[in-house]
Amino acid sequence: MRVFGIDCGTNCTGYGVVDAHAGARETRLRAVAAGGLKLAKTQPLPLRLAYIYGELLSLLEAHRPDVVAVEGVFYSVNAKSALKLGHVRGVALLAAAVHGVPVAEYAPLAIKSAVVGYGLAQKAQVQFMVARLLNLEAAPEPADAADALAIAICHANTAQTLILQAESRA
Amino acid sequence: MRVFGIDCGTNCTGYGVVDAHAGARETRLRAVAAGGLKLAKTQPLPLRLAYIYGELLSLLEAHRPDVVAVEGVFYSVNAKSALKLGHVRGVALLAAAVHGVPVAEYAPLAIKSAVVGYGLAQKAQVQFMVARLLNLEAAPEPADAADALAIAICHANTAQTLILQAESRA
Repeated sequence: MRVFGIDCGTNCTGYGVVDAHAGARETRLRAVAAGGLKLAKTQPLPLRLAYIYGELLSLLEAHRPDVVAVEGVFYSVNAKSALKLGHVRGVALLAAAVHGVPVAEYAPLAIKSAVVGYGLAQKAQVQFMVARLLNLEAAPEPADAADALAIAICHANTAQTLILQAESRA
Repeated sequence: MRVFGIDCGTNCTGYGVVDAHAGARETRLRAVAAGGLKLAKTQPLPLRLAYIYGELLSLLEAHRPDVVAVEGVFYSVNAKSALKLGHVRGVALLAAAVHGVPVAEYAPLAIKSAVVGYGLAQKAQVQFMVARLLNLEAAPEPADAADALAIAICHANTAQTLILQAESRA
């Protein structure tokens, strides 16, 4: 299974592609690609959104994931930030739909739990564990790329758990 | 000048197309099209966004406006509503950018002032004046379509004012 994680952000939107192969005891994870789409603040918002949309469509086309995973909505931000985040998030969800890939959504707590084993982990701990789980020498840059990989890992592990549960019931 | 107004909403997104011809004393306005894009609540969000995006692109292609006008951000809504609105708004702004049309943004107060002459006008007053300014027998349905026409009228009148001001200075 190939998972395309997107960490939507108004300054930089991270993406991370992870291949997950179910082994006998654990899921083997491999980082395929990761990066950040930085937005030029000087450009008008519609052009910035067009840039993110175009880049995400190209990346989905290049990596052909089975599923897109995004972070669930975090309501403690204020209305202004939420609207700005919504613009980017809407375009990211659209890119997945236009590419014909299903979207899975995970709460921030679930993502941290899946990667660090602790829902209230610090950002640095998440980055450290992402590098470790994917056998990378260093945490991917920018931090948004590491966050996107964390979302992808969360889906890979959760989906695998669901499959194992289904098998044990059968 | 042809203006394509969009009233972004999470349940229904209205659109309204207005032609504005500058006369000697006033701008003549004509309604070209108006309607609402209703969202099926049962569909996943990415597919709903893909529907709005596809419809808006088709409408922009069909009507070939000179400019897209949208309502500015209204921050008094809560974070949850703002994020939902942001999803739709992001996709609408993207459609304009992908179609290569500039986007103008107007505050709710400015839109009501331009149409009714009073920034705190009620929804019904806006609908009544939209019908009157465009010589329509009745206010367009749904209400979101009338709101989108109001946004387009606001741009037509404001743009005309800017041109007149530029001429009087010259």
